[in-house]
Amino acid sequence: MSMNTFGHLFRVTTWGESHGPAIGATVDGCPPGVPLTSDMLQHWLDRRKPGTSKYTTQRREADQVEILSGVFEGVTTGTPIQLMIQNTDQRSKDYSDIAEKFRPGHADITYWQKYGIRDYRGGGRSSARETASRVAAGGVAREAIKSLLPDLQIKGYMVQMGPHNIDPINFDLSQIDKNPFWTPDAAAAEHWATYLDGLRKSGSSVGASVEIMIKGAPAGLGAPIYAKLDTDLAAACMSINAVKGVEIGEGMGAAILTGEENADEITMGPDGPIYSSNHAGGILGGISTGQDIVVRFAVKPTSSILSPRNTITKSGEETEIITKGRHDPCVGIRAVPVGEAMVACVILDHLLLHRGQIGENKGAIG
Amino acid sequence: MSMNTFGHLFRVTTWGESHGPAIGATVDGCPPGVPLTSDMLQHWLDRRKPGTSKYTTQRREADQVEILSGVFEGVTTGTPIQLMIQNTDQRSKDYSDIAEKFRPGHADITYWQKYGIRDYRGGGRSSARETASRVAAGGVAREAIKSLLPDLQIKGYMVQMGPHNIDPINFDLSQIDKNPFWTPDAAAAEHWATYLDGLRKSGSSVGASVEIMIKGAPAGLGAPIYAKLDTDLAAACMSINAVKGVEIGEGMGAAILTGEENADEITMGPDGPIYSSNHAGGILGGISTGQDIVVRFAVKPTSSILSPRNTITKSGEETEIITKGRHDPCVGIRAVPVGEAMVACVILDHLLLHRGQIGENKGAIG
Amino acid sequence: MSMNTFGHLFRVTTWGESHGPAIGATVDGCPPGVPLTSDMLQHWLDRRKPGTSKYTTQRREADQVEILSGVFEGVTTGTPIQLMIQNTDQRSKDYSDIAEKFRPGHADITYWQKYGIRDYRGGGRSSARETASRVAAGGVAREAIKSLLPDLQIKGYMVQMGPHNIDPINFDLSQIDKNPFWTPDAAAAEHWATYLDGLRKSGSSVGASVEIMIKGAPAGLGAPIYAKLDTDLAAACMSINAVKGVEIGEGMGAAILTGEENADEITMGPDGPIYSSNHAGGILGGISTGQDIVVRFAVKPTSSILSPRNTITKSGEETEIITKGRHDPCVGIRAVPVGEAMVACVILDHLLLHRGQIGENKGAIG
Amino acid sequence: MSMNTFGHLFRVTTWGESHGPAIGATVDGCPPGVPLTSDMLQHWLDRRKPGTSKYTTQRREADQVEILSGVFEGVTTGTPIQLMIQNTDQRSKDYSDIAEKFRPGHADITYWQKYGIRDYRGGGRSSARETASRVAAGGVAREAIKSLLPDLQIKGYMVQMGPHNIDPINFDLSQIDKNPFWTPDAAAAEHWATYLDGLRKSGSSVGASVEIMIKGAPAGLGAPIYAKLDTDLAAACMSINAVKGVEIGEGMGAAILTGEENADEITMGPDGPIYSSNHAGGILGGISTGQDIVVRFAVKPTSSILSPRNTITKSGEETEIITKGRHDPCVGIRAVPVGEAMVACVILDHLLLHRGQIGENKGAIG
Repeated sequence: MSMNTFGHLFRVTTWGESHGPAIGATVDGCPPGVPLTSDMLQHWLDRRKPGTSKYTTQRREADQVEILSGVFEGVTTGTPIQLMIQNTDQRSKDYSDIAEKFRPGHADITYWQKYGIRDYRGGGRSSARETASRVAAGGVAREAIKSLLPDLQIKGYMVQMGPHNIDPINFDLSQIDKNPFWTPDAAAAEHWATYLDGLRKSGSSVGASVEIMIKGAPAGLGAPIYAKLDTDLAAACMSINAVKGVEIGEGMGAAILTGEENADEITMGPDGPIYSSNHAGGILGGISTGQDIVVRFAVKPTSSILSPRNTITKSGEETEIITKGRHDPCVGIRAVPVGEAMVACVILDHLLLHRGQIGENKGAIG
Repeated sequence: MSMNTFGHLFRVTTWGESHGPAIGATVDGCPPGVPLTSDMLQHWLDRRKPGTSKYTTQRREADQVEILSGVFEGVTTGTPIQLMIQNTDQRSKDYSDIAEKFRPGHADITYWQKYGIRDYRGGGRSSARETASRVAAGGVAREAIKSLLPDLQIKGYMVQMGPHNIDPINFDLSQIDKNPFWTPDAAAAEHWATYLDGLRKSGSSVGASVEIMIKGAPAGLGAPIYAKLDTDLAAACMSINAVKGVEIGEGMGAAILTGEENADEITMGPDGPIYSSNHAGGILGGISTGQDIVVRFAVKPTSSILSPRNTITKSGEETEIITKGRHDPCVGIRAVPVGEAMVACVILDHLLLHRGQIGENKGAIG
Repeated sequence: MSMNTFGHLFRVTTWGESHGPAIGATVDGCPPGVPLTSDMLQHWLDRRKPGTSKYTTQRREADQVEILSGVFEGVTTGTPIQLMIQNTDQRSKDYSDIAEKFRPGHADITYWQKYGIRDYRGGGRSSARETASRVAAGGVAREAIKSLLPDLQIKGYMVQMGPHNIDPINFDLSQIDKNPFWTPDAAAAEHWATYLDGLRKSGSSVGASVEIMIKGAPAGLGAPIYAKLDTDLAAACMSINAVKGVEIGEGMGAAILTGEENADEITMGPDGPIYSSNHAGGILGGISTGQDIVVRFAVKPTSSILSPRNTITKSGEETEIITKGRHDPCVGIRAVPVGEAMVACVILDHLLLHRGQIGENKGAIG
Repeated sequence: MSMNTFGHLFRVTTWGESHGPAIGATVDGCPPGVPLTSDMLQHWLDRRKPGTSKYTTQRREADQVEILSGVFEGVTTGTPIQLMIQNTDQRSKDYSDIAEKFRPGHADITYWQKYGIRDYRGGGRSSARETASRVAAGGVAREAIKSLLPDLQIKGYMVQMGPHNIDPINFDLSQIDKNPFWTPDAAAAEHWATYLDGLRKSGSSVGASVEIMIKGAPAGLGAPIYAKLDTDLAAACMSINAVKGVEIGEGMGAAILTGEENADEITMGPDGPIYSSNHAGGILGGISTGQDIVVRFAVKPTSSILSPRNTITKSGEETEIITKGRHDPCVGIRAVPVGEAMVACVILDHLLLHRGQIGENKGAIG
């Protein structure tokens, strides 16, 4: 991980600003021979696209991805894949006010303090728009995973919006695509709709928690000590805009458990080890166990709200700001496809890393 | 971050197994001219050393660190610093039982499944003993930071043991070194002593939460998009044995806040911006604001407990295991100096990265 | 250096194929605040552009570079700079013959053997067209160097074409821009013109040697042991298409010298050390001395010639091939700006690396 | 490649100074299950060891390597392998004179100028003693290669000493181990013995050229654009002390060839492609062809000679120096096992990289 590049062997570099001509991702290290078209990537981008429901920003972006390199006659060649998304709805005038004022909770002030210059239009490089590039790159990772492990599934969904959790009893993965919140709890979806509509109308915003589940990952992924699978998943998720916490399995809740409660006991099944529970979230010692891998992250509320906030200008004068742009009342919603994409990149990277160092042979049990 | 190496410019590679001849860290990229002796490092190692109280493992290790390279006449030369800690109390006989059985909650089974071979003595590479090397490397980072920013402080402490949180009203950093739990709440320390003694006697264990606070870090540390300061802190902490969750500022709790509650408003103070609150934990857009940086992580209970647990053998037979070794009832205690060390490495790394790309000039305010 | 990325802190990733929609470079780690426009980059690209004289390929490419990100209001922001060059003259029909046959001396066969798929149009990823992206990235490096060290100069020139060397007596840097061969020997330029015209008309080709001289680099650049300045320069030059050898200072000729002949004696001048000679090429122990840094590399003759050559097809049948495309009789000519660009990237990278680890302080002499 | 670390997946970090307590290498990314003992490594170290003939330095070093980690019950575990070689013959008194004076041709002055501090005893970090660590790491790479490709051979040998080349007619690989110069030309060995003895007695020194041949490497190793196999070989060799030039196949001589002379024509043999010649040195477009890979590098004469040389002191005073230590009249001799070791590391690294990205499938011919 180096500045704007993520990954060991499957390496993604994103580039571009919210209101420049384009954004994109340079994807290096993809295996050759993977069928890939821009339509395959568009499928995932359309899930993140703004304006798909009243609960997301009304900025209109086609978010049309173009593949500029690395694919020949419909399959990857093993050379860098350049993905470009042109910015079409730039409306720079919306952002003239923030050229001088720093929006509280945004990266305006820190980019200024670090670089002494910032593209203030819509957040520039720190805009959540950058995550479209990640979704495109994640789409490449998904197709490469499919060619290696067709049964591996990566499913992201919201488990909390503000103070409202989902009810585990209602958990049903098939519900995810049936509501605008990507939540597996149909009852929660209804309740959240009302709740969020109220927030939206009042110009407020709220945080959320997103969970990503990986089914079908083989045992053995991850590498000690600093390329542990959970380490890389944590980095991948924490790098997403507005994320403030990352958990694996029990997560922060592991602090309250005793050893007896936490240990996932092992028995032998017909196809290998079976675990009595999954407190570990599918990872032990940084290496996957073959169980479901469970990652969770919290997204803070967007800081762009209609209530005036105290702030200062570049010249140090105190003032107030209202951020009037077209924003998401709950950015956690659009963080779902972004989280899935980052997780897909990590999984593919570790599949390749494992194959590189170890090959196909592993310790058999039984 | 590549396998066993951590960091961009200040790079730490740890090596060694619990019961091999030695463990250690190879530290590359340290600035030259930093005063450094093994005594300076020993100070930090002694805090992590086992057997310092009845609440930590009774394994006896001198944990004496030797500097084999990179220091000449008492100062760093800018070349790699090799730190070696010999393993003196190896008692391999304690571990003969686990050569065939996998301990639930440990990395035994995943190392076997990944590599097809593992040093089963005391956890081998996945033993928490590896963290001594991190503490030594963190000691180097601390001295280098001191030569750059003498006032920067890194303070780690326990904020939760099992179900018992500290009381914010009692928070007093000066208490940290006065109790065996590194907690800033003197009352909690007393209560925890009784609680943990009970757990220890019953052969049980419990999880914990550790917080690290960095005071005096300048604004501007961190680099988008994948080398964000919070990304690297999350990776650093998640890479520590038994950690299952990492939070910055509000952390997972950010999910329940509204935008109004979460925004840290800004006013102008005599020396620069002042924030009305610190929900962000000192980081916006991956870059430090100059406020206190606040990182928190949860440590699961050690899986080595006296209650028998179901497990399987390498040949796939079902069996039970009791882990009789000399273990910590709450590994979170010794995770405090480890967390501090990892955070010190991240901060130094980002100080150097920032200086490399940006130099000394930054955007002034006012 | 990882696959298609070059550099430690100033990192360049090139992407794109000869006959895809575009090629380009993703440049990460550039310091902020550097004035940068596409015109500044175009200046260097125009030097490499095909078709500027009868001695280079007649393929017509505008080679117009666009800056898609990382620059705001005419200066760099410190975020990734995406440089794109659209491919305009693709003429895929010229290359239909080589879809099945491997051209001897080209990468056709190795790309096929490695990846099992290749973009056969005009060499695809292995085409020298990729070097345009390097020249663009090198232009960014040059501007960043200028902002740090205005007096540093990077000058590339041809010193040998086939059997014909330049005469050191005629060496005059001011001649470089006055002949189509970028040679500092005006007499050689005349002679080479006749020689190369003959080769061109006969459909043959010839090798060349290129030297790059860096004037004004400070002492202290480079880092032991594997990021030595000469190591990185060697890697940078060897990575250029068709390069088969790289030399620093005396280069391969160092093998015939005695210790007495080779030692560059040191005396003290008004501004620091003065060397009696420069056999070392400005680098000792991998670190710059402050003298001129001298790098040389040999470029093989292009393998695209009109004489039929024996080869095989993908299905293993023996056949002959004549490569009729529009090719350079001496690719060494266009390698001059490419070599300069790679060297510029290395120098900037080491300036930043040095500043990162060491800061501004160094050992003074006298 | 980052400072003192070399390699992508198989990563070697060397550490240690000539006159510190020890030197060594931290080897990360080695495949698990490779049989490895310190005796296997000692075999290669003994070839580089000083004092084995009168043609190498008379410094006495046992150069006994210890494996401190990463090996369990005689096989590698896939975790970091720490190799340590204690310095036994340190004789610091020999070097007191050079604490103040800079030896011409040595890194004394550049280390001082870069770091402002240097371990002046025997060259410290820049001493050729560091290369023992490389030979140990190369020994690990050799064993790992053997487990993957038992027939792959890496053979290094001297092809030139000062002005004296070997005669290709006498080339016989079986001669290499029969003379103190590792040369395949028995007649040259005799002639060189007399020549070097004269130089040694007069306190002079001379340069040399070393060639490394890799037989049995599969087609397909290497990755565009900056991790080309020849790029990494060039970096590996240029990073060796005193190396000033690196060549692949024709090397610098490629400059004088025409396209007709240089093209290695291809026909079809029973087991795949057969080439009429090997001007390319086994690499096309940065990827191996399956032919012998041929790398050559030039080593400058050691700068430690008995003739007095002009130099300056740290305080800028002009003076003379005679380097009286125990030095090699031709360091090229001991560069042979070092070159082999570096090449072994590169080959293993690329075998793993290729397996990681591509797996086992490649483009078949015929």
